[in-house]
Amino acid sequence: MNTSSDKCWKWFIDYLSPSESHGHGINAIVYTGKSDFQKIDILDSKGYGRCLVLDGKIQSSEIDEFIYHEALVHPAMLSHPNPKNVFVVGGGEGATLREILRHSSVEHVLMVDIDSDVVEACKTHLPQWHMGAFEDPRVELQFLDARKYLEETNKQYDVIIIDISEPVEEGPAYLLYTKEFYRLVNDRLSESGTIALQAGTTASPYLINFTAVYQTLLSAFPVVTPYQASIPSFGLPWGFALASKATDPTTWSCEAVDHLISERIQGELKYYDGITHRGQFSLPKNLRHALKAEKRIIEDNQPLYLYV
Amino acid sequence: MNTSSDKCWKWFIDYLSPSESHGHGINAIVYTGKSDFQKIDILDSKGYGRCLVLDGKIQSSEIDEFIYHEALVHPAMLSHPNPKNVFVVGGGEGATLREILRHSSVEHVLMVDIDSDVVEACKTHLPQWHMGAFEDPRVELQFLDARKYLEETNKQYDVIIIDISEPVEEGPAYLLYTKEFYRLVNDRLSESGTIALQAGTTASPYLINFTAVYQTLLSAFPVVTPYQASIPSFGLPWGFALASKATDPTTWSCEAVDHLISERIQGELKYYDGITHRGQFSLPKNLRHALKAEKRIIEDNQPLYLYV
Amino acid sequence: MNTSSDKCWKWFIDYLSPSESHGHGINAIVYTGKSDFQKIDILDSKGYGRCLVLDGKIQSSEIDEFIYHEALVHPAMLSHPNPKNVFVVGGGEGATLREILRHSSVEHVLMVDIDSDVVEACKTHLPQWHMGAFEDPRVELQFLDARKYLEETNKQYDVIIIDISEPVEEGPAYLLYTKEFYRLVNDRLSESGTIALQAGTTASPYLINFTAVYQTLLSAFPVVTPYQASIPSFGLPWGFALASKATDPTTWSCEAVDHLISERIQGELKYYDGITHRGQFSLPKNLRHALKAEKRIIEDNQPLYLYV
Amino acid sequence: MNTSSDKCWKWFIDYLSPSESHGHGINAIVYTGKSDFQKIDILDSKGYGRCLVLDGKIQSSEIDEFIYHEALVHPAMLSHPNPKNVFVVGGGEGATLREILRHSSVEHVLMVDIDSDVVEACKTHLPQWHMGAFEDPRVELQFLDARKYLEETNKQYDVIIIDISEPVEEGPAYLLYTKEFYRLVNDRLSESGTIALQAGTTASPYLINFTAVYQTLLSAFPVVTPYQASIPSFGLPWGFALASKATDPTTWSCEAVDHLISERIQGELKYYDGITHRGQFSLPKNLRHALKAEKRIIEDNQPLYLYV
Repeated sequence: MNTSSDKCWKWFIDYLSPSESHGHGINAIVYTGKSDFQKIDILDSKGYGRCLVLDGKIQSSEIDEFIYHEALVHPAMLSHPNPKNVFVVGGGEGATLREILRHSSVEHVLMVDIDSDVVEACKTHLPQWHMGAFEDPRVELQFLDARKYLEETNKQYDVIIIDISEPVEEGPAYLLYTKEFYRLVNDRLSESGTIALQAGTTASPYLINFTAVYQTLLSAFPVVTPYQASIPSFGLPWGFALASKATDPTTWSCEAVDHLISERIQGELKYYDGITHRGQFSLPKNLRHALKAEKRIIEDNQPLYLYV
Repeated sequence: MNTSSDKCWKWFIDYLSPSESHGHGINAIVYTGKSDFQKIDILDSKGYGRCLVLDGKIQSSEIDEFIYHEALVHPAMLSHPNPKNVFVVGGGEGATLREILRHSSVEHVLMVDIDSDVVEACKTHLPQWHMGAFEDPRVELQFLDARKYLEETNKQYDVIIIDISEPVEEGPAYLLYTKEFYRLVNDRLSESGTIALQAGTTASPYLINFTAVYQTLLSAFPVVTPYQASIPSFGLPWGFALASKATDPTTWSCEAVDHLISERIQGELKYYDGITHRGQFSLPKNLRHALKAEKRIIEDNQPLYLYV
Repeated sequence: MNTSSDKCWKWFIDYLSPSESHGHGINAIVYTGKSDFQKIDILDSKGYGRCLVLDGKIQSSEIDEFIYHEALVHPAMLSHPNPKNVFVVGGGEGATLREILRHSSVEHVLMVDIDSDVVEACKTHLPQWHMGAFEDPRVELQFLDARKYLEETNKQYDVIIIDISEPVEEGPAYLLYTKEFYRLVNDRLSESGTIALQAGTTASPYLINFTAVYQTLLSAFPVVTPYQASIPSFGLPWGFALASKATDPTTWSCEAVDHLISERIQGELKYYDGITHRGQFSLPKNLRHALKAEKRIIEDNQPLYLYV
Repeated sequence: MNTSSDKCWKWFIDYLSPSESHGHGINAIVYTGKSDFQKIDILDSKGYGRCLVLDGKIQSSEIDEFIYHEALVHPAMLSHPNPKNVFVVGGGEGATLREILRHSSVEHVLMVDIDSDVVEACKTHLPQWHMGAFEDPRVELQFLDARKYLEETNKQYDVIIIDISEPVEEGPAYLLYTKEFYRLVNDRLSESGTIALQAGTTASPYLINFTAVYQTLLSAFPVVTPYQASIPSFGLPWGFALASKATDPTTWSCEAVDHLISERIQGELKYYDGITHRGQFSLPKNLRHALKAEKRIIEDNQPLYLYV
């Protein structure tokens, strides 16, 4: 069945830690560059199609980015009764925009990404991701430090989606994972406002990030609901969290979710529906215990760095 | 944060396919051998502790084997009202036995593994897995071809757990994934009998195994309920299936599961409880669609081989 | 000294055998394709610059191809008193041509490569290799099976350079390593004719190729002089052989070689001179013994295949 | 030819640099430990047998250690007319001792290795290397900083062999590669004294070490003769240097070397003889030019660090 013609000699090795790696055979390096903030690669992998890689770590792949982006966006959007103004931190691929724009209530989306090189590369090379979202008249794109922007604005947003890379030393993201930042985010939310973010892997050896982000969110929001999805190209199960001033989406029935989707989201979703919702918010016992047991609160002067 | 002292130069590379790999830094090769059926390695990895590896593929790791074995055993055991006689196909680590023996109704467990070398190596080197289960007076261990045994016996079993490696060409397992085998298994089940099995990864590039096993089970059982768990050391999300003559555990409430556990299972579970149950049986929309769309039925003369 | 900014996640892994590999960090995949005969990659590596890779094995790199090509071409050319007609088997990069054309006596070079895709890719992407050699009016290029050509021609050549990839099953080269082929080559040589070829690594675990090629040449030529050069990008030391009707270049003094070079070769060589000549023909005792001890003769119906 | 049974999943990856690696399939980790100075591994590789690995870098392998140790020891020993007292810096495997003790003139060898854990591990696990040399009554073994020892002693040695790992930051060796150290070594040599040392790879991307060691030796010795050998398990060609107060072994004929060997060395050498001698001292033109062009002198306060 597997002959020598299957052999692969060009690889992208995603170092999950100094002692764990996930390797993808590749056919092409579509783009490679170094911005002011990070190294950017767009690769064509054999198993997962095109991939965006920042500082050596996969951000999303053609085959399963829909899982990541639907999981990240829709629960938060549906948690707000009528989201009109949405703020996106990061989200360079444009797929977070794409999913937000499916919500018919949306009037304005401000996306703030610190790295215009990433966005330009994605616009050119990831059309399957953004599907033209950057051209939607509801979208405003700014290349800024999102934290600085939020500090200086007095605008309020109904939903804030934080779609950034992991907190690595000298990387652009680690100050967007702290108590101070989350409190700032809370201040900029409208009354029924909700945020969602990716929170790192839920794999035991690295669980510290997921659990510390959870406890840190709890120090800034009354309701925090962590959840999980399998995005196979990442090589490890992945965690998310939703935090809000009021709404707890774990209480919704499958039918209620399906009803909200049919009322408020345009087009057919591939990953997210009522049963998916129930599944991703039903974390296994060991994860629930680890979340509860965590004591660490991430602060500006005690940041959490992950392995690069 | 990561200094050169973190560097790792001894690796176990789990080739998930010719173009995907999951690498684990290792400290020790505790055991290595070649049986009549396969190559056996027991390794100490840096991230996941001790690991059993058969023909180069990880079977379970110290850190997260509890997820695999609790997910595999308990839903099936609880699906039967009063399981007394249990049959285990494979299960060399002894951890499947360990979980079965927690059920107070159990009177007899017959474990049939084709490879005595695997079992001997596990007995010696994986005490954290079996925790003495092989010595339990309710356990009978035979080194046979499980299919041949089932063909020749006229005994009936309340629960049958199929805990075997993946179907690879020339490997010991591929004839235990066919319609003919599943029908034989069904014949040997008692009235309310249930089976459970691991069914390969649910990652898109390899989904064929999970979906074809599902359809093949449907050709032999009236009720088939696929489910999924994240076992991080595997590098990919993992699929299971439960098949029975009657019971559908997806209809149970969280509370009902928790009640069954407290009544029938001794000791504290780490992974499985009511919420976990709900989560693992709530497959995402894309997986549910792929399961339904699959046409392939695996047969003895049309086996499905995975990559070695 | 080495910071995370040195980290490399895009790799070309050259599998020297199932249990030995040489990995090169890469920046770009300049070209990738599949011809009728083999898979072709042109990669930009971090350590060795641009590389030509056929069927996953490095053929030459920008940084040290001069060693390979000077070692292959000049000893054979200088072994003939006045080489006018030269035949090249393979040599897709054009660098073998480049070195041959430096010899002022040369009037005509026929290069026969079976794979026009390789040559086209090299013409476009390896200008540092061929340096325009394909445009030299003395050069004739044909895309043919070199063995078939030699069987059908009655022309004679003064020097024949065999610059082909290794003998792998189903690959284009294995019938160009046999006694029958070498006898054919001998028949097409003019009176003082000489041939040179690369003969695989001289590393102990794979020495069979080098030693068997040597013994096979001895079955077809009166004088055979094996030699060796270090081409670091190959990851292993490399063997060559020169075979002729009469001349034994190992008897030349350093001064004689330097004199021949200054008289007959245009431009400055980077690798080859009198002292280099003495070094590369002075094989270590263990290699000399292994060459002598080898019994294997490679024949058409008993070909030698190396690992792919 | 290569079936799945050849597949290898346990590897030692020797990182030659952040962007170059040499991988060896392994069967066993015979020993692993951490001394006060470095991490120590003794591995059984598939291609090269048992290997000693310090801080992740191969030091020698069962299959080709004879090349390394014969190349390191014999030219220096033969450069002295009658070596009685020999000093070894490092040399943990005991194979340098083994080769020195073959010289019938030797009366006393003092080996000073900073790391007793390495020596103990080698004594136990590398009997094929030392062959009992540590038990020879002429041998004295001390666990000290060799530089400190030489500073404090007033003894003189006929030959000094420096057999140490590469100069890496925080490693035990980098102060044994400086001008100050080499001058100290010169001071402790008897009148016709000679030293030999391994000087790192001669591969172009890393040539700085070899060429800077050469220039640094020239700042301390009147005669310095660099040389090179192929030790395939290292993955790259390897450099050595001999430095002496007077003798230049490059002027010796092959016959003279063979005569010296037969007179002064007991037993049969596998690698080194007259022709080997001629070969290894005849460096290619490009290396000779690079050696001459190098300006760098390594000093205590300007050490040279290689990649770890």
